[in-house]
Amino acid sequence: MKRLAILTSGGDAPGMNATIRAVLNKAAHHDIEVVGVNYGFLGLVCKNFTSLDTEKVNSSISMGGTILYSSRYPEFAEKEIQLKAIENLKEANIDGLIVIGGRGSHHGALALSNLGFPTIGIPATIDNDIPGTEFTVGFDTAVNTVVSALDKIRDTANSHVRTFVIEVKGLRSGDLALWSGVAGGAESILIPEQELDLAHVASKIKQSVERKKKHCLIVLAEGVMSASELTTKLKEEGVLHIREVELGHVPRGGSPTPYDRVLASKAGAAAVNLFLEEKFGNCLCIQYNKLVPVSLKDALDIEKNFIDLSLYPLNSSISY
Amino acid sequence: MKRLAILTSGGDAPGMNATIRAVLNKAAHHDIEVVGVNYGFLGLVCKNFTSLDTEKVNSSISMGGTILYSSRYPEFAEKEIQLKAIENLKEANIDGLIVIGGRGSHHGALALSNLGFPTIGIPATIDNDIPGTEFTVGFDTAVNTVVSALDKIRDTANSHVRTFVIEVKGLRSGDLALWSGVAGGAESILIPEQELDLAHVASKIKQSVERKKKHCLIVLAEGVMSASELTTKLKEEGVLHIREVELGHVPRGGSPTPYDRVLASKAGAAAVNLFLEEKFGNCLCIQYNKLVPVSLKDALDIEKNFIDLSLYPLNSSISY
Amino acid sequence: MKRLAILTSGGDAPGMNATIRAVLNKAAHHDIEVVGVNYGFLGLVCKNFTSLDTEKVNSSISMGGTILYSSRYPEFAEKEIQLKAIENLKEANIDGLIVIGGRGSHHGALALSNLGFPTIGIPATIDNDIPGTEFTVGFDTAVNTVVSALDKIRDTANSHVRTFVIEVKGLRSGDLALWSGVAGGAESILIPEQELDLAHVASKIKQSVERKKKHCLIVLAEGVMSASELTTKLKEEGVLHIREVELGHVPRGGSPTPYDRVLASKAGAAAVNLFLEEKFGNCLCIQYNKLVPVSLKDALDIEKNFIDLSLYPLNSSISY
Amino acid sequence: MKRLAILTSGGDAPGMNATIRAVLNKAAHHDIEVVGVNYGFLGLVCKNFTSLDTEKVNSSISMGGTILYSSRYPEFAEKEIQLKAIENLKEANIDGLIVIGGRGSHHGALALSNLGFPTIGIPATIDNDIPGTEFTVGFDTAVNTVVSALDKIRDTANSHVRTFVIEVKGLRSGDLALWSGVAGGAESILIPEQELDLAHVASKIKQSVERKKKHCLIVLAEGVMSASELTTKLKEEGVLHIREVELGHVPRGGSPTPYDRVLASKAGAAAVNLFLEEKFGNCLCIQYNKLVPVSLKDALDIEKNFIDLSLYPLNSSISY
Repeated sequence: MKRLAILTSGGDAPGMNATIRAVLNKAAHHDIEVVGVNYGFLGLVCKNFTSLDTEKVNSSISMGGTILYSSRYPEFAEKEIQLKAIENLKEANIDGLIVIGGRGSHHGALALSNLGFPTIGIPATIDNDIPGTEFTVGFDTAVNTVVSALDKIRDTANSHVRTFVIEVKGLRSGDLALWSGVAGGAESILIPEQELDLAHVASKIKQSVERKKKHCLIVLAEGVMSASELTTKLKEEGVLHIREVELGHVPRGGSPTPYDRVLASKAGAAAVNLFLEEKFGNCLCIQYNKLVPVSLKDALDIEKNFIDLSLYPLNSSISY
Repeated sequence: MKRLAILTSGGDAPGMNATIRAVLNKAAHHDIEVVGVNYGFLGLVCKNFTSLDTEKVNSSISMGGTILYSSRYPEFAEKEIQLKAIENLKEANIDGLIVIGGRGSHHGALALSNLGFPTIGIPATIDNDIPGTEFTVGFDTAVNTVVSALDKIRDTANSHVRTFVIEVKGLRSGDLALWSGVAGGAESILIPEQELDLAHVASKIKQSVERKKKHCLIVLAEGVMSASELTTKLKEEGVLHIREVELGHVPRGGSPTPYDRVLASKAGAAAVNLFLEEKFGNCLCIQYNKLVPVSLKDALDIEKNFIDLSLYPLNSSISY
Repeated sequence: MKRLAILTSGGDAPGMNATIRAVLNKAAHHDIEVVGVNYGFLGLVCKNFTSLDTEKVNSSISMGGTILYSSRYPEFAEKEIQLKAIENLKEANIDGLIVIGGRGSHHGALALSNLGFPTIGIPATIDNDIPGTEFTVGFDTAVNTVVSALDKIRDTANSHVRTFVIEVKGLRSGDLALWSGVAGGAESILIPEQELDLAHVASKIKQSVERKKKHCLIVLAEGVMSASELTTKLKEEGVLHIREVELGHVPRGGSPTPYDRVLASKAGAAAVNLFLEEKFGNCLCIQYNKLVPVSLKDALDIEKNFIDLSLYPLNSSISY
Repeated sequence: MKRLAILTSGGDAPGMNATIRAVLNKAAHHDIEVVGVNYGFLGLVCKNFTSLDTEKVNSSISMGGTILYSSRYPEFAEKEIQLKAIENLKEANIDGLIVIGGRGSHHGALALSNLGFPTIGIPATIDNDIPGTEFTVGFDTAVNTVVSALDKIRDTANSHVRTFVIEVKGLRSGDLALWSGVAGGAESILIPEQELDLAHVASKIKQSVERKKKHCLIVLAEGVMSASELTTKLKEEGVLHIREVELGHVPRGGSPTPYDRVLASKAGAAAVNLFLEEKFGNCLCIQYNKLVPVSLKDALDIEKNFIDLSLYPLNSSISY
């Protein structure tokens, strides 16, 4: 019987559990044993292996977080530690590893693959910052959480005729801000991929106030600057009645949306197929709306970016 | 100043208002006047035109239903009535028409286009049954509503060790059942596109009971049969402790999800672009995750189907 | 060390898990051991005892259903079976029993108490049909689920100018219909406690249509008649454009609302206090917004009803 | 025909619209004309009166914010400005005024009443800080929003074995923190009404980590200190792996819960009754779960506080 290890790594993302479920159940149909690794790459190094309870896993399809726990473990960039991980995997008679996580985790998966261990990646992060895929598991849920907050903030903004700056996660990628901003009907969206024209933002707010618009929402990716910094600057530009909100960690959790669960299900099943076909060194990306295996190296190549920045000009053209 | 009419037709779908908002605001940037038509094609025939209040439209981005009202109007299949509609549009100095709706509404749009009136379609229906597009506006929201119900039903099923049959909309298309079933962790999904093997469904339920699984969810598209009919048949096959739920009209309403709002925003803006470029007779479809104009005729051609039926075998492979 | 058994019985209700958690943690502070009983009274008779995992219980505060499973077990009305249950409790060295459930379960608790076993009840049911308490655990969540459906249905009703009949649970008690109907802005609410005046209901619908009201929602408790029966009768009275929805089991599940979790927390802690003070034969009721112990017999006495029927005339006075 | 003015004032609260609806519809049954005042007391002074559109008001039952807009207007504490407001009301032939708002707004209502204008208050604020009432309109919704965030944060805390400090509104009143903390399963709740024992909080966190508990949630009312201040102090006490979240304005908006809509409906109808009976100078409070008129003076008297602080020791007794 083949043995397949599975771990979740980096920031947790809604849908990680649905991914684990798909892997476990698909593997059961092929008589593959699935071994859980607690706390991501750290668990590999500490031999924190665990068995997976089918009932618990099946019930977790609707739950946020990860039943395998996760950790940030920057030390895993060191080759010695990677070799230790592989040693532990071999000692435990593991024939392959599925890594569920974001950009950092996929760099870890690539390292193991380069060292010869059969490794497969599944992109799962609310940041949607793996260039090779249009969508990562967890992103749609995070967008839903942010937009639900925007809808609430719009109520208050409307009632008090105010401008709100709402800061969301996104150091390098403005995708969460873009999707949330378009869906939330934001007047402006500020992302790290675009140069900031503060005077233009301020002028747009002032024009909308002049047109008697009751609210103004500015969605800001943290990579640009902080909400309090932007608020200060907009006040200096003459914007009045402005408030700030920082959504912080809240969009990291929560029950995954159907989109994320379906993506998780597809990716989990496909990962087991790759394992059966011994096609290692790949991760499962959405490209042109199809789930395809992409080499870990290509998926991380920023030159081959599948992120859709067309939402940026779109928002300018439909906000008024 | 050009004048563009807009209507919503057939069953309402969440995101119709976000579509209207995108059209109105985009048009405002291009000095196009947008005229609302109440109650769909019926309103065209009765000259039920209306002006659109920017503030109300902007606030409606998060609202279900349609502020332009809708109606089912099968009489619009008659050529005479279509000609009357065109006469009224011309009399009101309308230069083009945007039709937001499902399959039937797109047949109406095609008829007007064939008669020479500049018409553009935007697929919006919870049924996701326009072959030329991967997703219609409203579908993602409906899936979310159904999955939210499935999650609640699973609580009860788990607590009482029961099997539930859940009937969802879908006369010709099982897409709502498929997406909801995969995301909801259903044991079986029954859709009109697949032949029903009742003995297999019953046997799968009984096996899962034997494996001490605490719940069993069967998601059923109405096009196959009714929930009560299926429940009766499964009882005859020896399935015990079975209950039925019919979700009915509930998934038709509700605040649109971000995905539906973004799709609505893209499609609304693109429709105005088509109007500006005088590319009539098209509707805006998602193909390979890109929004593209497709001729109304092609979009309705069942031979060119973009619906993803791979979710059907996927679910068999990951439910256990 | 004292040993306290706990079970959930009858229809599951959101907040049962939060109740179990409160009992377990409160007991831990007093060095009381808590023994779980699976499947309600049936589990007592079959000696289906189980230990409770603190981590699992703590994580369950936000989950619907019951981790102790439940069952309907009408045979428990027989004295012989009750005596068997007490025998099993004594054999397992149990010093007291907490019963979490609805009216039927409290009759069971009363029987055990009358036979001399130290028993305490916690009202938990979506039906809110235990006369001695203003609110049962689970009721507020069920109302939220129903009102969320009503909001969605109103979208569709508004868009199509339709009347909807929405059937909710409530054989003997119209409380779920009353709360949901007032909160959902229903035009009429039909409950078993009030005689039905069909002509009046029909006339109210027709008047609202005449006043150009876009929607009409009729909330119906199942104890009056079925939605399809009422729809047929209203059509006979000349009501047009009418549709029906049956919400069925959906409001039984789902994450409990804060109100239900707080009530569950109060009641769970108070039940342990009653156990410590050896005040058995009581259940924990909300009376005048305070949680108080009430004898099981009094709590079930329909003559001492705390249900607030004033919502019925209220709704007539504010719907228009 | 009698004329009744209505305004919303101070921070907006979910359910203000449902209150307006109840007043408008109830008044319609009694042939009373209802005049809206935009922007609260400011609108009184600026004669910003408006008519209320029945259809819009009826549709607003499920909407957050206030269709009458609101403002903070501290200048209304000046007698001269109050007299101006009364002059304007008389000039507009208004026979009575309903003020919907929080503590500050009720002080304004009391001032008008003391100056002889027939005024009635309806407590509506997410802060639940009007001493004379157990619940204000909007509080339950705010608790729901906070608990929904806590549930998401718990997912992440659990996955990463972390402690989170979550700051919620509440300068003088810890009620929002208390309810949210109990419902969210918080390990500690810090409120302005209780002296802070930092060492105890830190020790509790460290004990729970030692017991291998996967998460620790500390809910903090802003009146105690800021989240970042507390986080710094806890780190100084040796707490590791700690993160902070500030929920800010988000719980101010959103669709009101059924509880808030029912309370709004009761209070709106009762206010019209008080107007009919000419019982002015009162506001509508929940006392022992009944809606009763209380003199504005008494309702604001901190010595007659109906806030339930028993949740504070309850939480200590059931968190573990």
